[in-house]
Amino acid sequence: MNGTSPLAPTHFPDLPAIAGVTLRVARARYKNWDRCDLTYVELAEGTAVAGVTTRNLCCSTEVEMCREGIARGSARALIVNAGNSNAFTGYRGREAVELIMTAVSGHLGCAKEDVFVCSTGVIGVPLPKDKARDGLAAAFEASPCTWEEAANTILTTDTFAKGAMAQAVIGDRTVNIVGIAKGSGMIAPDMATMLAYVFTDAAVEPAILQAMLSSANRDTFNSITVDSDTSTSDTLLVFATAKAGNPIIRRMDDCGADALAAAIRSVCRDLAHQIVRDGEGASKFVAISVTGAKSDSSAKRIGLAIANSPLVKTAIAGEDANWGRVVMAVGKAGEPADRDRLAISFGDTVVARDGLPVDGYDETPVAAHLKGQDIRIHVDIGLGEGQATVWTCDLTHGYISINADYRS
Amino acid sequence: MNGTSPLAPTHFPDLPAIAGVTLRVARARYKNWDRCDLTYVELAEGTAVAGVTTRNLCCSTEVEMCREGIARGSARALIVNAGNSNAFTGYRGREAVELIMTAVSGHLGCAKEDVFVCSTGVIGVPLPKDKARDGLAAAFEASPCTWEEAANTILTTDTFAKGAMAQAVIGDRTVNIVGIAKGSGMIAPDMATMLAYVFTDAAVEPAILQAMLSSANRDTFNSITVDSDTSTSDTLLVFATAKAGNPIIRRMDDCGADALAAAIRSVCRDLAHQIVRDGEGASKFVAISVTGAKSDSSAKRIGLAIANSPLVKTAIAGEDANWGRVVMAVGKAGEPADRDRLAISFGDTVVARDGLPVDGYDETPVAAHLKGQDIRIHVDIGLGEGQATVWTCDLTHGYISINADYRS
Repeated sequence: MNGTSPLAPTHFPDLPAIAGVTLRVARARYKNWDRCDLTYVELAEGTAVAGVTTRNLCCSTEVEMCREGIARGSARALIVNAGNSNAFTGYRGREAVELIMTAVSGHLGCAKEDVFVCSTGVIGVPLPKDKARDGLAAAFEASPCTWEEAANTILTTDTFAKGAMAQAVIGDRTVNIVGIAKGSGMIAPDMATMLAYVFTDAAVEPAILQAMLSSANRDTFNSITVDSDTSTSDTLLVFATAKAGNPIIRRMDDCGADALAAAIRSVCRDLAHQIVRDGEGASKFVAISVTGAKSDSSAKRIGLAIANSPLVKTAIAGEDANWGRVVMAVGKAGEPADRDRLAISFGDTVVARDGLPVDGYDETPVAAHLKGQDIRIHVDIGLGEGQATVWTCDLTHGYISINADYRS
Repeated sequence: MNGTSPLAPTHFPDLPAIAGVTLRVARARYKNWDRCDLTYVELAEGTAVAGVTTRNLCCSTEVEMCREGIARGSARALIVNAGNSNAFTGYRGREAVELIMTAVSGHLGCAKEDVFVCSTGVIGVPLPKDKARDGLAAAFEASPCTWEEAANTILTTDTFAKGAMAQAVIGDRTVNIVGIAKGSGMIAPDMATMLAYVFTDAAVEPAILQAMLSSANRDTFNSITVDSDTSTSDTLLVFATAKAGNPIIRRMDDCGADALAAAIRSVCRDLAHQIVRDGEGASKFVAISVTGAKSDSSAKRIGLAIANSPLVKTAIAGEDANWGRVVMAVGKAGEPADRDRLAISFGDTVVARDGLPVDGYDETPVAAHLKGQDIRIHVDIGLGEGQATVWTCDLTHGYISINADYRS
């Protein structure tokens, strides 16, 4: 693990307990390290689950089995293994996941299908069954731990633990929503993210929970990119324990559904931004907003073309207001765009408009903005009403250093 | 300009003169430098032209006007400006191009539309008309120069001049084909390349020349990527002066058409590989071949997903046989693939097969291969007959250094 990202929050947030959620961690020693790397979350009976998983076609066994569990809609436990993604490990990898599911279902006396397993780390090495078995046995015996301990235990190359919370009022009850996440490389949209887990004590039916999560995911985890790479293991799960005592939400127009959806979205956005802030080698957090596109989806594709451009990302690392590279990225997105109607701003300064540099714009506030850690780029396409915001980080020597070395 | 790429050829090739092609260079001083930066190529009457240009929607005026000239099929001159791409400069940029076309057509007494203008360099600064005018005047007066001088004059961030040649026999005549090119960043497929010019003394009709060029382009310039970014100015032009005395080629089944097409493809491939070898910061040349895909186009998309993955490229920079990242890239390509049928080789060693690492494969030849400068990765998808090869370079600290600084 490298030094903490300069974009990290000053401290891990205070997060409330969620009734029906018990966290434990243990040392499975999946790698040659002395830290907790197995997280075991016990969930109350009656917990609903929803989720989004990677679209990478070479996904891990864990992802395939999470998808089956999500389709059933109920959960009793979550296991997260850190240090080994168990991806591309064929039948041997599958055996390890089956072993974990069987052990946990035996321990809890629940259906095997109610056990969710995720793994993150190196690809291509089967998860060692003996370490998983011993780690689980230790986790079963461990005392419950804090959110921060669990958030630390799921990390791999991350430089800080990621947590977030929100509340929502449903009828006369206040429900809590807490999330933890990990991820700092191999981050790109069209997937959930690396790993993110959201827990709430709200009572909500799985189908509605899924609708809320899918909608939140679109504008949060699926709107971030660190390096355009899509992991084979990415999983976002939300668990609702129904312990808050609110009348169960069965439809999107039920009382409090909007509030719960907004709170889930807020937690997802907070975690997604933290993942970008921990982007490998990141020195700047970049928000790219696109307006005036033909549609929202067109705006998002343009935003991601900018966010994924190595030339834009290196320019930001160099604190260079190189809007020419932004023009290039808009043009390569393949979406409707008219060079002569484009306007581009850095921070609050319009630097180009109507296909031309703005004559004699004041470079002082632009330079000052680019020296900061939070960069805003706004592109107006000038063609329609579509808009989107995406988030990324800059591309620095740190990214190269981290990724030219990392393996096993 | 940085030090010469470690992947550069040892010397510029010996290139024959092409009858009907006269090269001159001059100092327009588009930037604050003391080097030739304006290339003027005079072409004999009756020269046919074909071309491929960037698909970037925010392309330069030069590209738009080259497209018009390509549609007409005849050429008398080529002007290449280095140091200023004149892209995203609106009507002011267009005026500069018109000025150049008018000046050259006046000098040669030819149609304005027979003058081809290309510019490369910084985006968003209108090409200064006075410098263009003075540079042209100097070029008109200059003595003819060599291919190497012209190849040097069109460069910007390149670290070496790029040239290539081939010959073809058409009936009882041997025709010559010579190409020069520039480009080392903002290189990605779905465009021509940066700038590449091919000259031949063969007699061939423009429509057939276009067919030969488009076909060659697909497997050469459109199969390379340095950084996945697509320039706003990329242009590949081929000029045929008809001075060799061969019977003019009017159809693809005419005598010698195959030989000419093969020679043009050979020159394009050589230049395309040289561009990758001059990729910004490149320390290794990487050939990625994909077989067993559902179709050739599917194989190419998978190959490019691997070639554009920052995680694959940094692993190669680190001489790490990290085939897990290759699996990830295959999966994110979105093309038909079955994790459990994939096979992956580095050099001549199969490291993964049937969705599993090959037990106990010999790491010695793999490590030795990765220490070299020419890296081969082979992926067999195991589903069909589709195949493609793409070429890229690794992603190093050098790329960051070059691009976090470069502007004006």
